[in-house]
Amino acid sequence: MERIKDSIKIKWEEILTSNSAVQLIEKDEFDLRFYQIYLIETFHYTSHNAKNQALAGARLDNKNVHYMKYCFKHALEEAGHELMALHDLRQTGVDLTLEKFPHPLPETQTLIAYLYHISTTGNILSRLGYSAWAEDSYQYFMDFLMKIQKRLNLQKSQMSFFIEHGDLDDSHAQHVWGTIKSQAKTELDITAIEEVALTTLELAAAVLDGVTREYQQLILDPTKSRYFFLNK
Amino acid sequence: MERIKDSIKIKWEEILTSNSAVQLIEKDEFDLRFYQIYLIETFHYTSHNAKNQALAGARLDNKNVHYMKYCFKHALEEAGHELMALHDLRQTGVDLTLEKFPHPLPETQTLIAYLYHISTTGNILSRLGYSAWAEDSYQYFMDFLMKIQKRLNLQKSQMSFFIEHGDLDDSHAQHVWGTIKSQAKTELDITAIEEVALTTLELAAAVLDGVTREYQQLILDPTKSRYFFLNK
Amino acid sequence: MERIKDSIKIKWEEILTSNSAVQLIEKDEFDLRFYQIYLIETFHYTSHNAKNQALAGARLDNKNVHYMKYCFKHALEEAGHELMALHDLRQTGVDLTLEKFPHPLPETQTLIAYLYHISTTGNILSRLGYSAWAEDSYQYFMDFLMKIQKRLNLQKSQMSFFIEHGDLDDSHAQHVWGTIKSQAKTELDITAIEEVALTTLELAAAVLDGVTREYQQLILDPTKSRYFFLNK
Amino acid sequence: MERIKDSIKIKWEEILTSNSAVQLIEKDEFDLRFYQIYLIETFHYTSHNAKNQALAGARLDNKNVHYMKYCFKHALEEAGHELMALHDLRQTGVDLTLEKFPHPLPETQTLIAYLYHISTTGNILSRLGYSAWAEDSYQYFMDFLMKIQKRLNLQKSQMSFFIEHGDLDDSHAQHVWGTIKSQAKTELDITAIEEVALTTLELAAAVLDGVTREYQQLILDPTKSRYFFLNK
Repeated sequence: MERIKDSIKIKWEEILTSNSAVQLIEKDEFDLRFYQIYLIETFHYTSHNAKNQALAGARLDNKNVHYMKYCFKHALEEAGHELMALHDLRQTGVDLTLEKFPHPLPETQTLIAYLYHISTTGNILSRLGYSAWAEDSYQYFMDFLMKIQKRLNLQKSQMSFFIEHGDLDDSHAQHVWGTIKSQAKTELDITAIEEVALTTLELAAAVLDGVTREYQQLILDPTKSRYFFLNK
Repeated sequence: MERIKDSIKIKWEEILTSNSAVQLIEKDEFDLRFYQIYLIETFHYTSHNAKNQALAGARLDNKNVHYMKYCFKHALEEAGHELMALHDLRQTGVDLTLEKFPHPLPETQTLIAYLYHISTTGNILSRLGYSAWAEDSYQYFMDFLMKIQKRLNLQKSQMSFFIEHGDLDDSHAQHVWGTIKSQAKTELDITAIEEVALTTLELAAAVLDGVTREYQQLILDPTKSRYFFLNK
Repeated sequence: MERIKDSIKIKWEEILTSNSAVQLIEKDEFDLRFYQIYLIETFHYTSHNAKNQALAGARLDNKNVHYMKYCFKHALEEAGHELMALHDLRQTGVDLTLEKFPHPLPETQTLIAYLYHISTTGNILSRLGYSAWAEDSYQYFMDFLMKIQKRLNLQKSQMSFFIEHGDLDDSHAQHVWGTIKSQAKTELDITAIEEVALTTLELAAAVLDGVTREYQQLILDPTKSRYFFLNK
Repeated sequence: MERIKDSIKIKWEEILTSNSAVQLIEKDEFDLRFYQIYLIETFHYTSHNAKNQALAGARLDNKNVHYMKYCFKHALEEAGHELMALHDLRQTGVDLTLEKFPHPLPETQTLIAYLYHISTTGNILSRLGYSAWAEDSYQYFMDFLMKIQKRLNLQKSQMSFFIEHGDLDDSHAQHVWGTIKSQAKTELDITAIEEVALTTLELAAAVLDGVTREYQQLILDPTKSRYFFLNK
C-alpha cells in the first residue's frame, strides 16, 4: 500500500514539473477561459465517474459482496457531481444547455474510455487505483486552484466543484484506502491498482495538456476553436 | 400507475390459480426438499439483482441523475441478499460450498437473462417494473410462506430471506412507486414498466414451476436429479 | 455429441405433441394472420441472431481463434436475414415500415434476452447449442410449413425466409456440428451446449405459443390486439 | 472524405518528426530487442482488433445491415493476426508462452480501451476512422520497417506480420474507404470518423513512445524492466 502511495507521489511530482497547464498557471498566462475550458472537460469525465464506479461492482465475475457495496455506495455519492462543474461554469457567465456542449477533447475521451475498460475488465479491484489519487489529490492540486481563484478573482459559488471535492477529500480517501487495505490480498491486486493509479493520473494530466492547448488555440484563432463561444 | 398495479394484480391471480408450486403447497404434497430447491434457485437469481439494478443506472444513455441515484441506492440495499438464502439453506442442514452449488435451472437463467437485458437496453425505466411487484409481493405470497413454515415446522432462523424481505417491503415498495410516479412521464415509460412487471412475474412463476418439476423428479428418481444431495 | 442430438430430438417430440401452434395447424384453425404474426416475431428475433453470434466470438475471455472465426463467419452469413421475413410479410400484403412494427411479444423478448446472455457470459461455446437445432430444424418443421403453405395458398415469394433457411440447412448444420466436434473438449462444454440447445428450443416453442395466443386474441377482439392492423 | 485523408496525412507528418521511436530508428540507436518489444505490444493490441471490429457491428443500435456485414467480414479477416506477431517474435528467438507474456504497456492498454469504447458507444461508424489509417499506413511506415529490417538483418520469416499487412493493404484500404464513402452520410459521421482516426493514430504513436522508453529502460537497468527476458 505504501508502494502505491509512493508511486502516486512520484507521478504527481513529474506532472507538477512538466505539465503545460502547470506552467501556464505558474507564469500567470491565463484568463477566465482557461478555467472555463477546464470546467467543461471536468464536466465531461465526471459525468461518467459514478457509472464506471457502479459497473466495477456490477461485474458478473465479482463475487465480493463487501467490495460490491463499496462500489455502489461510492457510485451513489458520485452521481450528479458533474452538475457542480456545470453550475460553476454557469456562474462564470456561460449559459449553455447540455445539448450545445462541445464534444469532449480526445484526451478526455481517452480517460473516459480507459476508466470504463478497467472498470469492466481485468482485475476486479483495479478501479480503486483511480480513486486512490483522485480522492486524495487536493494536497497536490490545491495550490494551483488557489492561484487560479486569486488571479481570476473567483467567488466560492464559482468553485463549488473543487471546494466540495476538497471537503469530501478526507473521509473519501480514508474509505478508499481502507477498502484497498481490506480487499487487496495478492501482489496481482496491488500491481493492478498501482497500474491504474499511474495510468489514470497520466491520462488526467493529458487532459490538462489538452485544455492548455485548446486555450492557446482559442486565443490564437477562435474561428478554429470548439470553445469559440467563450469569447465575448 | 393504477394500470400497472391492476395488471400485476390480475397476473398474480392467474398465477395463484394455475401455478404448479401453488397447487403443490395447497395440496400439502411437499417436504423440506421443495423449500431447499426453492432457496437454491432464489439464491441464484437474487445474486444478480443488485448487479442488474446497478447496470440500469450506469447506462451511458441514462442522463437522469435522480433515477441514477435511485438505482445505485437500491443496488446497495440489495447487495448480498442472496447470502440470506444461503444462510437459510444451511440452517436446514444443507452444508454446501458455493462452488458445489448446482447450476441454476433453465427457468432461473431465463429470468436472470431477461433482467440483464431489460436493465441494459430499451426504456431506461423499465427495470422499475420488476421492483414494482417484487418489493410488493408479500401480500400475495405470505400466505404460502406461512403454509410452508407451518408444514415444515421452520424456525425463523431458517426463513431469514423471506422475513427480511417482508419487513423491507413497505418502505421499499413506497420508494419504488414514488420513483415510478416522479420519473415515468410518458405513455411509453408506463408501457415499458408494465411490460417488464408482467414478464418478470411470469418468468418468476416459471421458476416456481421449475422448482416443482425438479422436486417431483428428485422424488421419482434422485439419480437423475441435480439436487440429489438433498436426499439423506 | 450424440447425446445433444438425442436431447434435441426428444425436446422436439415434446413440442410437436404439446405446442399450441402445432395443434392449431393440425386442426386447420388458422388463416393468413397467423402466418403474418409469426413472420413479425420471426423478424424480431432474427434481427438479433447475427449480433449475438458475433458477440459470442468477440468476448474478451475467448482465446480460441478457430472458434472466433466460426462466430464471425456465421454472423456474416446471418446478417440481414430478418429482411427476408420482412419481405415475405410485405408480399402477403402488409405494408408496414419498421418504425410502426409492434414491439416483440414477451416470449420473443425473452428468447432474445436469453441469447444475448448466453452469448456474452458463461461457457464460451454455449451459443453453439442454439445453432445446433436452429440450423437443423427443417426436418421437424417442414411438414408444418407445407401445411401452412397449402392452406394459405402461399407463393414461393411469400416464403423466402423459410425456403432460404431450408436450403442453407445442410451446409450450415454440418458447419455447426463440425465446430462442436472440434471445439467442445470437456464434459462442461457438452453440458453447456446441450443446456442452451434445450432452453432455446423451449423458448422458441414459447414464441409459437405466444403467436397462437395473439392470433386467437386478434380474432376474439381486434381492439385489444397489437396486431389489429392485420385485419382488413 | 478528402478532409479525413488530409487530417491523417498531417498527423502522420507530425508523428514522423516528433515520435521518439522514429528518432531512435533514424539515429540507428536500437538493436533486436527494440523490435521484439514492439512485436510484443503489437501482439497485445492486435489480439483485440477483430473483437472490437465485431462489436462495432453487433451494437443494438446498429440497424445498417450493409455496415454490419462490413464489420463482420473485417472481423473475420483480422481474427488471429496477432499470431503472426507471435510467430515473428518466436522467429527472433524468444520462446515465450502466452501465459508468460508481460502485461501490455499502459499506452497499449489505453489504445485497446479507446478502441473498445468507440466501437461500442457514440457514432456507429466511428471505428472506420481506425481502419482508415491502420489499413493504409504502409506508405508512411514502410520506410522505417525497411531500416529496421536492414539494420537487424531480419529474415522475411521474422517479419510476417508487417509483410502480410503490407500486402493486404491495398484491397483492405479500398474496402474501408469504399465503406466510408457509401455509409458516412452526415457531417456528424465524417467528424466522428476523423476524430477516431486522429485519436487512434495519436494513441498508436504513444505506443511507439512507450516501446522506446521501455527499450531504453531495458538497456539502462534490465532488473527494472518487464522485458528483462529479452537480454541474453
